Amino acid sequence: MAVPLTIFVALIAGIISIAMALYFRYLVLKEDPGNEKMIEVAGYIESGATTYLKVQYKILGIFVACLAIALLFLPSPFETSDTYTRAVSGALNWEQVIAYTTGAVGSMFAGWLGMYVGVKANTRAAQGCTKGTKEGFNIAFFGGAVMGLAVVGVALIGLSIWYMIIPDPSIVLGFSFGASSVALFMKCGGGIYTKTADVGADLVGKAEYDLPEDDPRNPATIADNVGDNVGDIAGMGSDLFDSYVASIIAAMMLAASLAMIVDVTLTTESRFIYVVFPVVLCGVGLIASLIGIYIIKLKGSDEPGKALNSGTYLSTLIFAGLAALFTLIMTIGLTSSEIIMLWRNWGAAVIGLFSGIIIGFTSDYFTRDDKKPTRSIAEAAKEGHAVVILSGFSYGLMSVVPAALGVIVAMAVAFLLGGVFGVAMAAVGMLAIVGTIVSNDAYGPIVDNARAIAEQGDLGDEVIRTADRLDSAGNTAKAITKGFAIGAANLTVLALMFSFTTEANNIQAGTIQAMDLLKINVLIGAFIGVVVPALFSALLILAVQRNAAKMVDEIRRQFESNPKILKGEEAADFNKCIDIATKGSLKELVFPSIISIAIPLTVGILFGVAALGAFLAGAILSGFVFAIMMSNAGGAWDNAKKWIEDGNLGGKGTDVHKASITGDTVGDPFKDTAGPSINTLLVVMSLTASIFLGLLMMFNAGAGLIIF
Amino acid sequence: MAVPLTIFVALIAGIISIAMALYFRYLVLKEDPGNEKMIEVAGYIESGATTYLKVQYKILGIFVACLAIALLFLPSPFETSDTYTRAVSGALNWEQVIAYTTGAVGSMFAGWLGMYVGVKANTRAAQGCTKGTKEGFNIAFFGGAVMGLAVVGVALIGLSIWYMIIPDPSIVLGFSFGASSVALFMKCGGGIYTKTADVGADLVGKAEYDLPEDDPRNPATIADNVGDNVGDIAGMGSDLFDSYVASIIAAMMLAASLAMIVDVTLTTESRFIYVVFPVVLCGVGLIASLIGIYIIKLKGSDEPGKALNSGTYLSTLIFAGLAALFTLIMTIGLTSSEIIMLWRNWGAAVIGLFSGIIIGFTSDYFTRDDKKPTRSIAEAAKEGHAVVILSGFSYGLMSVVPAALGVIVAMAVAFLLGGVFGVAMAAVGMLAIVGTIVSNDAYGPIVDNARAIAEQGDLGDEVIRTADRLDSAGNTAKAITKGFAIGAANLTVLALMFSFTTEANNIQAGTIQAMDLLKINVLIGAFIGVVVPALFSALLILAVQRNAAKMVDEIRRQFESNPKILKGEEAADFNKCIDIATKGSLKELVFPSIISIAIPLTVGILFGVAALGAFLAGAILSGFVFAIMMSNAGGAWDNAKKWIEDGNLGGKGTDVHKASITGDTVGDPFKDTAGPSINTLLVVMSLTASIFLGLLMMFNAGAGLIIF
Repeated sequence: MAVPLTIFVALIAGIISIAMALYFRYLVLKEDPGNEKMIEVAGYIESGATTYLKVQYKILGIFVACLAIALLFLPSPFETSDTYTRAVSGALNWEQVIAYTTGAVGSMFAGWLGMYVGVKANTRAAQGCTKGTKEGFNIAFFGGAVMGLAVVGVALIGLSIWYMIIPDPSIVLGFSFGASSVALFMKCGGGIYTKTADVGADLVGKAEYDLPEDDPRNPATIADNVGDNVGDIAGMGSDLFDSYVASIIAAMMLAASLAMIVDVTLTTESRFIYVVFPVVLCGVGLIASLIGIYIIKLKGSDEPGKALNSGTYLSTLIFAGLAALFTLIMTIGLTSSEIIMLWRNWGAAVIGLFSGIIIGFTSDYFTRDDKKPTRSIAEAAKEGHAVVILSGFSYGLMSVVPAALGVIVAMAVAFLLGGVFGVAMAAVGMLAIVGTIVSNDAYGPIVDNARAIAEQGDLGDEVIRTADRLDSAGNTAKAITKGFAIGAANLTVLALMFSFTTEANNIQAGTIQAMDLLKINVLIGAFIGVVVPALFSALLILAVQRNAAKMVDEIRRQFESNPKILKGEEAADFNKCIDIATKGSLKELVFPSIISIAIPLTVGILFGVAALGAFLAGAILSGFVFAIMMSNAGGAWDNAKKWIEDGNLGGKGTDVHKASITGDTVGDPFKDTAGPSINTLLVVMSLTASIFLGLLMMFNAGAGLIIF
Repeated sequence: MAVPLTIFVALIAGIISIAMALYFRYLVLKEDPGNEKMIEVAGYIESGATTYLKVQYKILGIFVACLAIALLFLPSPFETSDTYTRAVSGALNWEQVIAYTTGAVGSMFAGWLGMYVGVKANTRAAQGCTKGTKEGFNIAFFGGAVMGLAVVGVALIGLSIWYMIIPDPSIVLGFSFGASSVALFMKCGGGIYTKTADVGADLVGKAEYDLPEDDPRNPATIADNVGDNVGDIAGMGSDLFDSYVASIIAAMMLAASLAMIVDVTLTTESRFIYVVFPVVLCGVGLIASLIGIYIIKLKGSDEPGKALNSGTYLSTLIFAGLAALFTLIMTIGLTSSEIIMLWRNWGAAVIGLFSGIIIGFTSDYFTRDDKKPTRSIAEAAKEGHAVVILSGFSYGLMSVVPAALGVIVAMAVAFLLGGVFGVAMAAVGMLAIVGTIVSNDAYGPIVDNARAIAEQGDLGDEVIRTADRLDSAGNTAKAITKGFAIGAANLTVLALMFSFTTEANNIQAGTIQAMDLLKINVLIGAFIGVVVPALFSALLILAVQRNAAKMVDEIRRQFESNPKILKGEEAADFNKCIDIATKGSLKELVFPSIISIAIPLTVGILFGVAALGAFLAGAILSGFVFAIMMSNAGGAWDNAKKWIEDGNLGGKGTDVHKASITGDTVGDPFKDTAGPSINTLLVVMSLTASIFLGLLMMFNAGAGLIIF
């Protein structure tokens, strides 16, 4: 039997991954942390980030505990005929609840480890820049890789162990939901935190007092740097952890519940292979990521941007090859039609990965300062604040078209290859090299912090320029990984929608309506779904705005009450600003978090399971539009501003520059709060639908409480 | 037989309406046009508007002719079994083509008549303001009413005559498609024109040279005023003409093709009643509008805002009552179950109308300067340009929620009452008093122009203040009518989608797939549909931005090359600016127009009829989100700026004011170009699907060329 052997691939890869993460952590920690001033600043950042995480985890603990208790009494949705028996007998849902808890704790651990190393790596990377680009790059890259490897390692270990203990995807679903609950808090909270600090610092520091970026006199500087860590490292990490696990579980659940994949009927034996297939491919993807990371380390690079991208390419190619090898192993003992079908699904996974890269490069095109969109946005700044906004918003909307085509083609081809299971495999493929993606992404905030520390540690212009080069590579990588993350989340959530409805149909075959848009409840579900990402974005942006206003008041108060701060004679009160960002972001994330669970449940109860499926579809599609638009518009505004700051169109201090800062400030919560949080929202809503399916089936058999 | 009698209601109401329009035209023209300077300015505006319309109609003529020729060879979709026979025999589609042409010509005529009176009424209204608010209001209101009555009159006459000649809804569908083709050009072109001029004038005049609004030294002033007429009178009129006709035809087609309405089977006789029912209710609605308008005229008012709103309320109540009377007449000779069903659909129409008003008031709430959203946006201006944008954008998104709930409730209740036909009747009900709505809306640009003419004709501060009061009432009315228009278009397009798919199923029962989102081609259709409104908005906003940039260059050139213009010693070259706006807008509307026909055809051919239905659904839902968001955000920014200009938060000239101008300028193309054009886009796409259904059925029977 090939199966038990192959799932060990995932477990072993996961363990290697954690080991590598710890090794990289060691490599980073043994580097020189720089001069006293640098250590002091890094200390501030570390303590701010730790404080935030502590408070965050405390609230999260309560939230997770409440949900765990609720889950305990839920009829488990996946023991088909047992659902009602269990509900009536009052048997408790222990297995899923424990899996849920481990998922939550695993995600918290990965977030903590990544951030812990991130805040250690920043000052060391800054010090590394005194030796050269390559040295600085390596430290930052290893620091980021800790996060990437931790995320994937924890996910694979958790998934594979759970599946080995209880080979029922519904338990793994609990694990996934746990990861998702954490991701929602981490992403929304982190996103609000980071932009509260960033926008606040910019609005007063840059716009009113003409202070440069990261100026130590700005009381919000430290909070801004903390924000990069809690938002972009911990937040992004838990977001991708979430998508990653969800994509795997979606494919597993489909394999467990489909009667046939395209025209090949699943037998008890072959079904097992398909259930394990996504886990195995992810293990293979992790190995590919490790090799990619190791090659980058070996080669080192004076061109950090190229190094990051070549890591992505390499991992992709290695993945395709290694995955073929393991697919071959898994075909042992299968019939010829089963063999062909497995290969077709290998194809779906590979196509998913390639299309992920294409979507990433679309984002790159729309946000690079040497391409038309960003250039046009910069030119638009000549006409003033309003025109730069209109231009960026429009190009953001336009960028949705190629990205959507990328997803549509991937979806269509994957479907032709492997039916709905193929679509799920495309999502798995897209996320297979997530280790590389998260590593590249976490590299960004580390070098951003490093630049700030170099500035505050007086390392001189030469070093700051080096740090700037590293930072700019980080921004490019970030644009690509963001596009990638959105595309992957999109396909994942589609796969979850498929698995949710397949499951619903399995439970009560015949009584579930088709998700036919001509049925009014289905149409209403889709309508509500389309509106939710808009509401969610608005709530998050307003949260940032409210908090940033408090931050602005505090910064002004400090400058006005103590003129010595501006002269650089006395240190600003950083802690006040950190406190505002921490408390504000935690307060503001509660309502969005609740609705992301409450709305799908309400739709399911009122309008039925088919409407809930359509709700998810509507939310996925409109969420895609909003996420891509916000993320790319934000990136383009950011880079247009930087291009002008490089001396183009008059450079710094001109009206053109001021207009471009307006664009950047609008883009901040677009690209770093609302846009990326939509991913998490979608995954949480889809998992909520799946987890509570048993409950919904008790309330209604297909149609909702409001009968249509 | 009740039927022939009742359809005459619509014809007679239409004729009365045109007669009243001509009478109001007479009333307006006999007023005093004011002093020489005013006549001169009004002359410029009139000639600019006429020039634009001439060029526009020339291009439109070519476009309509091309489409007419294409239609001629189409297999007519509605002669069910004959579709293929006709295509094979090569019989030409003469009837539909002639109906198409009359629809186009009718829409052009209504647009021309409305605008012709509008450009005459502005100077007379300004002169009226010298006598008092009431006098000024009456002239402007009559001027607007000409447009409102012309639109409805032409529509009802056309519809009812065509149906009396050939009682086949497919012919009336041609009439509707004709109106729609014109609306697309008028709305997009007018929207681009008006904002090119407005944004251009503001960016240089207000922001760079601190000139007040409507300053005669600003070379773009006349173009700006022309824009109000071509965008807000002709454009908005043809848009509502389009929705109005489309809502009626959607209900007619459903009545003609449904086997049963809810549980009442349609007989040959009762089917006839349902087909005529929407036309009759619209005739009744027109009578209600006329009475409402007449009461406002009799009472006159010193409080223009109240007068406009009370007209809307009155028309609503009168409609509900009169419609009940005519429903009662139409029930003569029906069986008891048929009688109940007719009353249920009367209920659907009334609920549609009430919910339209609720949506309108939602828009009002989100855009009024004494309510929280607009106040918060104004307060946000204290934090600078970026924050005012973030705040307005967020509140715009939030405003989607109550508006969507309004539509969802209307849709759900109407469906419970009358099935899909009930939903169509809700749309008909919502649009029944469109005469009042368009009148109120067209009043806006007339008083806006009147204010400008009062300023340029040196009528003194007192008169300008009076004109300002009229203008502010116009803005409130505009917010309500816009929300109304979007809600109505939304329901209309839903009804069109239902009728399209019902028809498709009738043609080839069984071979058409359900619009099931689990089918990959349906999902792809929905995905593309969701993306299209985003793309369309981006294209229009970029068009405005490109043209406004040209306008800015021209204004700067004039000021720099001839300093006497700024001193007021020499007149600016208005014609250059008019020319830029005219040519630019006509050039820019071509691509968006083509895609609005090409994309649905492509989706239908590649992915099949079910995918095309889902495409429409996706476009409707995401279009609704974008249209409401843009329209309300734009209105709120506008009013926040005005509130600051009234002396709040420091008033004019402060940084807060400047930030609020940025918001207003971003909002301009949102609320007056992209937002409202989405309505027209949706209607055109839906009608395209219906008109070309026969062709699509020849290509594929359910599934598309790409087989899933």
